Amino acid sequence: MVQADNWRDAVKWNADGLVCAVAQDVHSRRVLMVAWMNAEALQQTLDTGLAHYYSRSRQKQWMKGESSGHTQKVHELRIDCDGDAVVMLIEQTGGMACHTGRESCFYRVWDGEQWHITDPVLKDEAEIYGHQ
Amino acid sequence: MVQADNWRDAVKWNADGLVCAVAQDVHSRRVLMVAWMNAEALQQTLDTGLAHYYSRSRQKQWMKGESSGHTQKVHELRIDCDGDAVVMLIEQTGGMACHTGRESCFYRVWDGEQWHITDPVLKDEAEIYGHQ
Repeated sequence: MVQADNWRDAVKWNADGLVCAVAQDVHSRRVLMVAWMNAEALQQTLDTGLAHYYSRSRQKQWMKGESSGHTQKVHELRIDCDGDAVVMLIEQTGGMACHTGRESCFYRVWDGEQWHITDPVLKDEAEIYGHQ
Repeated sequence: MVQADNWRDAVKWNADGLVCAVAQDVHSRRVLMVAWMNAEALQQTLDTGLAHYYSRSRQKQWMKGESSGHTQKVHELRIDCDGDAVVMLIEQTGGMACHTGRESCFYRVWDGEQWHITDPVLKDEAEIYGHQ
């Protein structure tokens, strides 16, 4: 992805300097995760074609997959009308985006009475992050 | 959608008492909008089966479509691993979710140099909101 700097024009950062970022599987169109980007993370995403986010808990920018190997190759990046959210169509390495080892972070559905888990764990967390 | 109150257990509200809400077309799986919900909006969404949000600028809860008629019937509602985002599969009345009269709020794609508008305006804003 060739990089120009005028991507900044459309972005409306929140008070913490972040925009909301939705990652959607390019094949199934399932939403895999929702996270945050600061300017550096969005810049890195556009520059490298791999999704980068900002961790609010660790207060640092990170590349998705840097620990797990589950990188996200960006096929398309869109911004919304008011500029405070982006949606990416991504190719999910390893077929799992969630740190719990599931395909999607949205593995719980409201069934009218409770949150029902619909997705199997494909790989144990310990195995993903190498802590046996 | 039958309502129990234990949906609250899984939700992790942010400092402003909100969760991020993604609305995705149940047929095309396109992401149509990203907005926010407070507890009341999520409760109303579960109770009525129609998407309700919280407007940060107007500081009030609102039903999507209350002015435009473009309501969103919720087919499925999921929550993510850390409980700070929900994704809904919705049926979009009128075929447009954006206040600009487009199908999706994400009508601009990054083409490597600029934000390129891909979606036509289906209906003028003035016509949608009745200000001729």
